[in-house]
Amino acid sequence: MFSELLKTNGYAELRRVLGELNPADIAEEFEDMELSDAVRVFRMLPKDAAAEVFAYLPSGIQQGIVEKIKDFEIKNVVEEMFLDDAVDFIEEMPAGVVKRVLSNLEPGKRDIINQFLKYPENSAGSIMTIEYIALKERLTVREAFDKIRAEGIDSETIYTCYVTDSERRLLGDVSVRALLLAPPDARVTEIMDTSVVPAVTTDDREKVVGGFRKYGFLAMPVVDNENRIVGIVTVDDVMTVQEEEATEDFELMAAMSPSDDPYLKTSIFTLTKNRLPWLMLLMLSATFTGAIISGFEESLATIPALVAFIPMLMDTGGNAGAQSSTLVIRGMALEEVETSDVLRVLWKELRVALLCGTALAAVNFARIVVMGGDVILSITVSLSLLSTVMLAKTVGCILPIGAKKLKLDPAVMASPVITTLVDAGALLLFFAMAKALLGA
Amino acid sequence: MFSELLKTNGYAELRRVLGELNPADIAEEFEDMELSDAVRVFRMLPKDAAAEVFAYLPSGIQQGIVEKIKDFEIKNVVEEMFLDDAVDFIEEMPAGVVKRVLSNLEPGKRDIINQFLKYPENSAGSIMTIEYIALKERLTVREAFDKIRAEGIDSETIYTCYVTDSERRLLGDVSVRALLLAPPDARVTEIMDTSVVPAVTTDDREKVVGGFRKYGFLAMPVVDNENRIVGIVTVDDVMTVQEEEATEDFELMAAMSPSDDPYLKTSIFTLTKNRLPWLMLLMLSATFTGAIISGFEESLATIPALVAFIPMLMDTGGNAGAQSSTLVIRGMALEEVETSDVLRVLWKELRVALLCGTALAAVNFARIVVMGGDVILSITVSLSLLSTVMLAKTVGCILPIGAKKLKLDPAVMASPVITTLVDAGALLLFFAMAKALLGA
Repeated sequence: MFSELLKTNGYAELRRVLGELNPADIAEEFEDMELSDAVRVFRMLPKDAAAEVFAYLPSGIQQGIVEKIKDFEIKNVVEEMFLDDAVDFIEEMPAGVVKRVLSNLEPGKRDIINQFLKYPENSAGSIMTIEYIALKERLTVREAFDKIRAEGIDSETIYTCYVTDSERRLLGDVSVRALLLAPPDARVTEIMDTSVVPAVTTDDREKVVGGFRKYGFLAMPVVDNENRIVGIVTVDDVMTVQEEEATEDFELMAAMSPSDDPYLKTSIFTLTKNRLPWLMLLMLSATFTGAIISGFEESLATIPALVAFIPMLMDTGGNAGAQSSTLVIRGMALEEVETSDVLRVLWKELRVALLCGTALAAVNFARIVVMGGDVILSITVSLSLLSTVMLAKTVGCILPIGAKKLKLDPAVMASPVITTLVDAGALLLFFAMAKALLGA
Repeated sequence: MFSELLKTNGYAELRRVLGELNPADIAEEFEDMELSDAVRVFRMLPKDAAAEVFAYLPSGIQQGIVEKIKDFEIKNVVEEMFLDDAVDFIEEMPAGVVKRVLSNLEPGKRDIINQFLKYPENSAGSIMTIEYIALKERLTVREAFDKIRAEGIDSETIYTCYVTDSERRLLGDVSVRALLLAPPDARVTEIMDTSVVPAVTTDDREKVVGGFRKYGFLAMPVVDNENRIVGIVTVDDVMTVQEEEATEDFELMAAMSPSDDPYLKTSIFTLTKNRLPWLMLLMLSATFTGAIISGFEESLATIPALVAFIPMLMDTGGNAGAQSSTLVIRGMALEEVETSDVLRVLWKELRVALLCGTALAAVNFARIVVMGGDVILSITVSLSLLSTVMLAKTVGCILPIGAKKLKLDPAVMASPVITTLVDAGALLLFFAMAKALLGA
């Protein structure tokens, strides 16, 4: 749409359209345009809209634009952006671009950004912003509104203000709702809520998401080790983090290294790089399962029919284990399951495994017998199936909890790893049963 | 903690503690208490706190409390709750409890709740609330603040107000931030934002989540088919929906029927009911794979070594397919991939499959040869591996997109189904190669 207006020199119309669109929608249009066209349109945006649109762009296009615009334009955009958006942008840029961007900022802004870049990845500090309103404890409601009116336009959220003492230590928070409903001469300390639960800069960002989930915050203050407020995390950023964490788990659980980029924007080399090491590792592990089969070649030579049950046993074991590990991994991500629950989980899973395994074994027994199979053979297969399901569900619930206990990401212990392990166990069980019951 | 204070008759201390705790934390304490103790503490809460705590409770405990308290107490709690919380609560109750609750409400409230209960599950209407502030178009900023002060205490969010015409049709929205920064005599229509994007009551709730994700809203208005505002959806509810939708996908993708209950609170019968049908279906499908092996018993008799490669081929195929299907399913959930992208996705996956498959085949070839295996055998296995990976990635990306096209949930076409299908294909390819190259 923009490109056509550019071609026909419909600048007035273009300006009108830009004025009506939401910055997120303008950014979306940019993604499908030639970079040179996007830069032309970008330069037509007013300063504040330009900064907003820029914050919504994927980092590839951000870099393309920065490389084409002048130093003073970079300064305008970055200084107009909210600090958290500016930090997100700079974190994704190559070193040369970072240097050029930082050298064009005012020293104060540069220092703050440099400090933010130092917070550990995935910490509360790395997702917070400094555009919040702090109210000194002696202020009245009327004075608080004056301060909000004076500073509000630059604050990421004005709906929660933070009351501090003279040393910037956090005393409580007060919502604009409470301020609006209070008498103008009341002190903010009289109406503030002291039950506020702050995050510390070094807290894991998942803990921050947990806080929002539990309390339904719009914003959460972040303090340093001496309880001095240094920033806030806002709900829109938390929604993004929540979705990124879920995506990361989906990818890990399907044996891929997680990536932040949208699928269609990821190159095939990156996709391969994220997938191949896992496939390789799991392929080599699966050769051990093959070695187990080789070890029982004699049994298979005696009763060739055994081999036909291998896929069913392996698949059912893998599926049963994946069910358990998925519920446990997700439960831990949502803080519903703790590592200390390991025995409760195991006890639950063993009973579910017994119920599921018995039903599956019964149907399997009936199927083999109805189709004219040998009764002892079908007993062998059904008992192997039941024990495989029991084993799979045990492994499936224990491994993710164990991983968490070892401070690893539990999502690694998902379907692919469980399947590979359970396959080996299923075959060992199967051949042992065959030896015992069929003499194979 | 509460139980001990109850035992020692420390009521004054208990009241003090209750006054200081966040309602979400009180609700959490209730989950670990005897029901009768929870009811006693619940009755000590002031009316508004009781309603808030009640809204945070899991439905099992909500039902327990409702069954123990008197009619007038039910009326107090439900009428004090935000409408969306009340509707969520009533939706989960058995018919008898619903009848008792509804019969204790005032007719007006009862009619609204009945109307809300009729919105389709997972629609925008089913997650909205009616506690919002509507401003008539002729109001000034000063008059708007008077209205907010008068109504604000009952509104779920006062930070975005909606400007309507005399027929309640939505004209735009205005934030409290904009009101605070505007001259008191300006008209709300002068400062309202007309780019507001409302949802329609019948929209899928995932679409609502998409809107919040894209635009970073705090609240989103919901309109009927004639553009009249009927409610709002607030960001805290959207965070919950976002998390529920992700959990649902995790469960579906591991071959389970989704459930809203936390894992540890779910009975083993419910867990079994959610898992067994899928395991059964997949087990029976896997017997077809077994039948393929039976069909090639002669080949296996000629070259017994072939059977040792079956687990490796099956597992690698399953893993490769699960990677593709997971990325496509998640991409569609986040609206990054559309069904119309099918050819772009397929082209991407085929190239990734070629890269991954070639690398895996090469390593596999080297391993077999180094371990003293036959060269033709290792060529057979490696070519089968490459074609299995190509097949798996094709099936893995096409099936979820096809499911979406057929209005099914793409998450169903995940690892377990892909694995079962690819297993059969992998074996057919393997035996065909073995026939051609080894004459087996």
